[in-house]
Amino acid sequence: MTKWVYSFNQSETEGGRELRDLLGGKGANLAEMCSLGLPVPPGFTITTEACIDYQKQADINNDIKLQVKTALENIEKLLEKKFGDEKNPLLFSVRSGARVSMPGMMDTVLNLGLNDKTVLGLAKLTENERFAWDSYRRFIQMYSNVVLGVNGSLFEATLEDLKEARNVKEDTELSADDFKELVEVYKIMLVQESGKTFPQDPFDQLWHAVTAVFKSWNNPRAIKYRELNNIADSWGTAVNVQSMVFGNMGEDSGTGVCFSRDPSTGAKRFFGEYLMNAQGEDVVAGIRTPAPINEDSKNIGNEKFKTLEEVAPKVFAELTTVYQNLEKHYKDMQDIEFTIEKGKLFILQTRNGKRTTAAAIKIAVDLVSEGLLTEKEALLKIDPKEINQLLHPRLDPNASKTLLTKGLSASPGAATGKIYFSSEEAVKNEGESLLVRQETSPEDIAGMAAANGILTARGGMTSHAAVVARGMGKPCVAGCSHLDINYNEKKLTVDGKTYFEGDYLTIDGASGEVYEGRIETLDPVMSKEFELFMTWADSHRKLGIRANADNPRDAETALSFGAEGIGLCRTEHMFFEGERILAIREMIFSTDATERKRALDKLLPFQKEDFVGLLTAMSGKPVNIRLLDPPLHEFLPHTEYERKELAEALGVEIHIINSRIDSLHEFNPMLGHRGCRLGLSYPEIYRMQTKAIMEAALECKKKGIEVNLEIMIPLIAVASELKELRLELEDEIKNILGEEKVNHKIGTMIELPRAAITASEVSEYADFFSYGTNDLTQTTLGLSRDDSGKFLSSYVAKGILKQDPFVSIDQSGVGFLVKHSVSQVQRDGFSHGICGEHGGDPESIQFCHDTGLNYVSCSPFRVPIARLAAAQAAIR
Amino acid sequence: MTKWVYSFNQSETEGGRELRDLLGGKGANLAEMCSLGLPVPPGFTITTEACIDYQKQADINNDIKLQVKTALENIEKLLEKKFGDEKNPLLFSVRSGARVSMPGMMDTVLNLGLNDKTVLGLAKLTENERFAWDSYRRFIQMYSNVVLGVNGSLFEATLEDLKEARNVKEDTELSADDFKELVEVYKIMLVQESGKTFPQDPFDQLWHAVTAVFKSWNNPRAIKYRELNNIADSWGTAVNVQSMVFGNMGEDSGTGVCFSRDPSTGAKRFFGEYLMNAQGEDVVAGIRTPAPINEDSKNIGNEKFKTLEEVAPKVFAELTTVYQNLEKHYKDMQDIEFTIEKGKLFILQTRNGKRTTAAAIKIAVDLVSEGLLTEKEALLKIDPKEINQLLHPRLDPNASKTLLTKGLSASPGAATGKIYFSSEEAVKNEGESLLVRQETSPEDIAGMAAANGILTARGGMTSHAAVVARGMGKPCVAGCSHLDINYNEKKLTVDGKTYFEGDYLTIDGASGEVYEGRIETLDPVMSKEFELFMTWADSHRKLGIRANADNPRDAETALSFGAEGIGLCRTEHMFFEGERILAIREMIFSTDATERKRALDKLLPFQKEDFVGLLTAMSGKPVNIRLLDPPLHEFLPHTEYERKELAEALGVEIHIINSRIDSLHEFNPMLGHRGCRLGLSYPEIYRMQTKAIMEAALECKKKGIEVNLEIMIPLIAVASELKELRLELEDEIKNILGEEKVNHKIGTMIELPRAAITASEVSEYADFFSYGTNDLTQTTLGLSRDDSGKFLSSYVAKGILKQDPFVSIDQSGVGFLVKHSVSQVQRDGFSHGICGEHGGDPESIQFCHDTGLNYVSCSPFRVPIARLAAAQAAIR
Repeated sequence: MTKWVYSFNQSETEGGRELRDLLGGKGANLAEMCSLGLPVPPGFTITTEACIDYQKQADINNDIKLQVKTALENIEKLLEKKFGDEKNPLLFSVRSGARVSMPGMMDTVLNLGLNDKTVLGLAKLTENERFAWDSYRRFIQMYSNVVLGVNGSLFEATLEDLKEARNVKEDTELSADDFKELVEVYKIMLVQESGKTFPQDPFDQLWHAVTAVFKSWNNPRAIKYRELNNIADSWGTAVNVQSMVFGNMGEDSGTGVCFSRDPSTGAKRFFGEYLMNAQGEDVVAGIRTPAPINEDSKNIGNEKFKTLEEVAPKVFAELTTVYQNLEKHYKDMQDIEFTIEKGKLFILQTRNGKRTTAAAIKIAVDLVSEGLLTEKEALLKIDPKEINQLLHPRLDPNASKTLLTKGLSASPGAATGKIYFSSEEAVKNEGESLLVRQETSPEDIAGMAAANGILTARGGMTSHAAVVARGMGKPCVAGCSHLDINYNEKKLTVDGKTYFEGDYLTIDGASGEVYEGRIETLDPVMSKEFELFMTWADSHRKLGIRANADNPRDAETALSFGAEGIGLCRTEHMFFEGERILAIREMIFSTDATERKRALDKLLPFQKEDFVGLLTAMSGKPVNIRLLDPPLHEFLPHTEYERKELAEALGVEIHIINSRIDSLHEFNPMLGHRGCRLGLSYPEIYRMQTKAIMEAALECKKKGIEVNLEIMIPLIAVASELKELRLELEDEIKNILGEEKVNHKIGTMIELPRAAITASEVSEYADFFSYGTNDLTQTTLGLSRDDSGKFLSSYVAKGILKQDPFVSIDQSGVGFLVKHSVSQVQRDGFSHGICGEHGGDPESIQFCHDTGLNYVSCSPFRVPIARLAAAQAAIR
Repeated sequence: MTKWVYSFNQSETEGGRELRDLLGGKGANLAEMCSLGLPVPPGFTITTEACIDYQKQADINNDIKLQVKTALENIEKLLEKKFGDEKNPLLFSVRSGARVSMPGMMDTVLNLGLNDKTVLGLAKLTENERFAWDSYRRFIQMYSNVVLGVNGSLFEATLEDLKEARNVKEDTELSADDFKELVEVYKIMLVQESGKTFPQDPFDQLWHAVTAVFKSWNNPRAIKYRELNNIADSWGTAVNVQSMVFGNMGEDSGTGVCFSRDPSTGAKRFFGEYLMNAQGEDVVAGIRTPAPINEDSKNIGNEKFKTLEEVAPKVFAELTTVYQNLEKHYKDMQDIEFTIEKGKLFILQTRNGKRTTAAAIKIAVDLVSEGLLTEKEALLKIDPKEINQLLHPRLDPNASKTLLTKGLSASPGAATGKIYFSSEEAVKNEGESLLVRQETSPEDIAGMAAANGILTARGGMTSHAAVVARGMGKPCVAGCSHLDINYNEKKLTVDGKTYFEGDYLTIDGASGEVYEGRIETLDPVMSKEFELFMTWADSHRKLGIRANADNPRDAETALSFGAEGIGLCRTEHMFFEGERILAIREMIFSTDATERKRALDKLLPFQKEDFVGLLTAMSGKPVNIRLLDPPLHEFLPHTEYERKELAEALGVEIHIINSRIDSLHEFNPMLGHRGCRLGLSYPEIYRMQTKAIMEAALECKKKGIEVNLEIMIPLIAVASELKELRLELEDEIKNILGEEKVNHKIGTMIELPRAAITASEVSEYADFFSYGTNDLTQTTLGLSRDDSGKFLSSYVAKGILKQDPFVSIDQSGVGFLVKHSVSQVQRDGFSHGICGEHGGDPESIQFCHDTGLNYVSCSPFRVPIARLAAAQAAIR
């Protein structure tokens, strides 16, 4: 029989971290902690397979129910309490736990097992009526919200009303009777809102809660998160049912979250927040501002509170031992949730802590120097995509700033933008928006992703806003309590100053500071840990890393990020400025080769100048220059006005312009008259470019600059195209060089299936191949990048495609062709590289490594990502 | 040392027909005839390799010259004459001879070796001064024309002037002195026209003549001919140097051409023409009307002349023996050139005679019944492409024609009609209209069906016009770039001539020619030999032959041509008529699935009716129906007027129409939202089509009509698309059928590289594959069918592509993918077919046979071609 349920407690634990896929991250760690002898409240985990089974059957099968009952009875024996017992009731928390952490995505129910009778037993047993009724009203609220889908804010509003009526500010000031009254009101509200009564049978409660967790796997937020994070729908979530311990049993109880190192900087200091007389969700929800656990954890928002070390030194010492053991055990920084019940410490959860990338790198480097990790292990600890975070800008220190207020430094990086108070508006104004919220919730994810940065009025360092922003690498200032936000009037007041939707603000997520107006930002500077870490990466990787750069400026950036050459310079990008575009258009409107040559001669000096700059910047590193690729109509004017202007500039009648434009129209320009086809139709274009390249090379040589050139001919479908064009180029090169020599190669982009298929023939006329996987993806899948937006996301959502093939290389289709081509052409000095968008995608880089490519080329800002991904590929 | 020269004479012959590639067709046959003991004047052949060597060196190398001299000396010994000897001169003819006959392409020089001195020797020796000087003036004329490029008509005119001066009509009436005078005039004319004197040294004459033949390999006519006939530039031509015999030595001499059977009808009758006292070119040039060789050869123009049989019965009897031997030897109808020198018969050349296709088939069938050929050999005798001639009307060969311009031979057959520039007008004038369009679109289908033929200014061999016309069996000339069409003024300008709506034009779709005015056409007739021949083809072929047919009418045509099923029914072609297009547009403008379904319900009865017709016509033969493929915007109105009309019909505002049209615009529709992608976005479309198909099947079953259905889902890139859609379809089928059963399969078109690459995964959800090689060619080569016209022809002309890949399958690229896919999926009952345009191309059919496909599907009119090509593939 399938084992659907795994128990964990200090005397008998059935799983461990090796069962992460089956038990989820949380379940596996709970089991692991039990094995380590840590004080974990006993419980059991219902497996991810049970979730998948539920999705198929739309019901929890009887085997599962039986196994749950058995596990539950074991706990009853262990704790000498009984589920649903009126005198000595056993209560449970029910939490989701997927294979990887999905913060805020899945829902939790606490205090399950309470009903009108057990609440009385709990009150008597704990001699704390207020606590019992507080727990009960919380349970009803969570159950109503999570299981029955009633809007949680209704309950919050009722609670606020009650506090107002009682004229108090904090929940803690309410009495047992207040909560009794609230329980009755909540029950009525539940019936009104959902048409259902609150179930008194604890098992009913349990099955409904488990079902709700299973169902929440497919709520839209969860699906969206999975889509954004490449998590398979088929993984499912486990359910952790754990006996309750209570942080809200009085002032000797409490709850908290701590990190074994600073998640923001990576500094080796114990760090955390806690609240006495509270349950876990109070810390996370950001309703009360939590206190620091020690001096190290103090900040501007919480420095007035006493630390846990001061309040409960014994518990703090115990917690210190726990975190140290856990960090040694997991060889990583831990994020630990704990509860103190009447002075006794319980560990509810541990996991590798989320952290900023800067922190992740510092921690990895430190763990190596502490002897806990090897270099290779350390390299594997960092998700290359995260390195993006480090490349975010910071505020110009010399800019004049007006400090407005300060909040928590929740996620580093500086951002400036127009403020918007809703996720929708932030999305609409993507690229220039700053999202401002009381606090964020999972519904805000799209807005957070679109905004330049996030600013919240409430919440701590582990609030939703802070955790998600760090994950995204977005600057975030959280818990900025001076903000007074008015959603209705779309305005924000800070100490008397008011800002309206669309006004500019600037935040610095590294300092927690909020400034008025717009402030210039500067490129990031890399830490010495980062530099060290990247040298490790470089020493392990086999793949070369180049950058795609079209001008000297991009080339400089690429170099500063560690690029070893230019893998793709798109010469046409040089054509769009001022006089150049006019010369290009003149060329297009030429009626014969002579006229065309005359127009091209005007472009020559520009091109040459660009190439001199590029070669100078790269001084001896390979520079791959691709000859003209797009169809000519890309250079034509679009508006009637521009056409008229062009007609005047060229001294022809407008109808000539129009008819030429008509004749250049293509139904499928992607598959049209472009690339080498243009080179064959109008040899003078490629000749001019070759001339510019070679003259530039000679000029550099004269200045003593080393030159390492690769001339790339695009869009080859058949070998004979390359044969013919290579002859043309070599002839032109001979014309320019004469007796001189320039270190150069001629090769082609492999971007059409046919070229890949016939690679060995094509290679007869090439010194190198560069895989243009953007176009190769378009043709192999018959998928236009510009048109597929309409359906591609639904393809990924439905699982028809695992990933967007323009982001991560389609290994079975496009990858087959690349492998085929590489295997066909294995000869000394012949290089294979990749220059599509995929060159900066870690998964694709792994593929390139496995396939035996020589290098990848990506945009300059992705170079460090590629360096690390290449190292990881080599280590794996 | 390379052997550059091969001798042939009755005592020593160094070659034979097996050396055709090296000796050319003519040289190989001359050697072969010598081996057979036929009276062939001795000579030698300079090989095709020597021609290639000449092209490289731009000179005849010394080895060749040495070998020529040796061979020449042998002939001198054999004939006891000497080249250049003043008393007993040996004279030669110099002729080209490529591997395949290239009529009119290469030039010939006769009487080489004559000069001012040898002419006297010849006169004395033959005691015929007139003959000698006639020969000499002919030689100078040919030499001047062929070797030195002087316009031949100048010499003709001078000859005519002389005849006028002498007041005679025929050359034969001129005297020896007249010719002497002509020789002197010709020599002066030569100097005036070319600046060169006529060479007196016979070896100079010879080298110049040989060089001229070699050069003529690259004259524009020859290049053009090779381009049109797929003859490689690298083949080269041989040169045949043969001792002269003279038909112009008096009334006991003569020359002629004969066919062993009638080249026009194929009837078994000896057939030919001759002239006494004449050289070969007199017969060909048509200056004198030749006489019939026998009674059978008499016709209205020559019946008054005496036959050769009457004039020279012995020679005639000898010739009869020769032709019978040659036909037996070559097992084919022979085209023989002979000369009679003073009563002695010489055979100068034999070759398989050109013939009409009807004749070719009759001859092949007769030769089988005569026991000369096996069925297999007979089947290989006919070029399948020629069969086109038999199936379409052709121009009356005797009609006078004025050629206007030329386009692509897009769909064979001749058509004459009044030109109309819109589909509506073509329909109004059905039966006498010729539709003239820039290019056609699906909206023109009615007009195309109504017109006698179609003429377009743009588009290639697989443009819409070409594909649809071939499918309909309508003559079509496409991509006729000289046409300047003005829709507004309803006129057409070609090279300065203007034609208005209603004016007559005539097109020949087999040649791509466009003629002025009306020209009579002749209807096709199928002979009983043709029927027999095709049954032989059927008994030998392994490939099944299906047709692409979109409606019952096409299906009937296909059946009458021998189709064994429908390989592709494009359902969208059914959508363009009247109410249907409105319903489709209503569907496109629907805002949700319910509205969409309502619109689709209107289409259902039309679709069902079409399918009933199709299934009824095919009664039990497989019918493959492809679900909707093109992007929705293909169904949208193009003009502002049509848009307004649509807005009214749908009861919405015009701006809604316009904005929806804008939103459907795609940059590369070929790679856009079409095919199965539409099926996944709007499942109700495929469900409606499936419903229509299955309801039609049930209706047929009820009537006792057998049903054999294949439902095809287009544009699959990944297996999961097919998986999902197959589930949809099966669900709908279950809905319709309930407990009933209908013989059906579900499969997919393989038309994207990725589908072919991952064939084995895709096949998990398919019962069959049909290779859509049109789109597969577009994507594999990255080549838009609609846009590549601009450069594709120059690609073929330059030899970058051997052939238009849309006409004949690109075996190394597209073929690789097809082979890969077929080899991946080999299981019982799983069929592989091809339904692109290539299904009707003989070379591609050979490929399909070799690759192990189960069938090819082509347009109805190509079915007989495919049947024969498939048989030939199997025999080879």
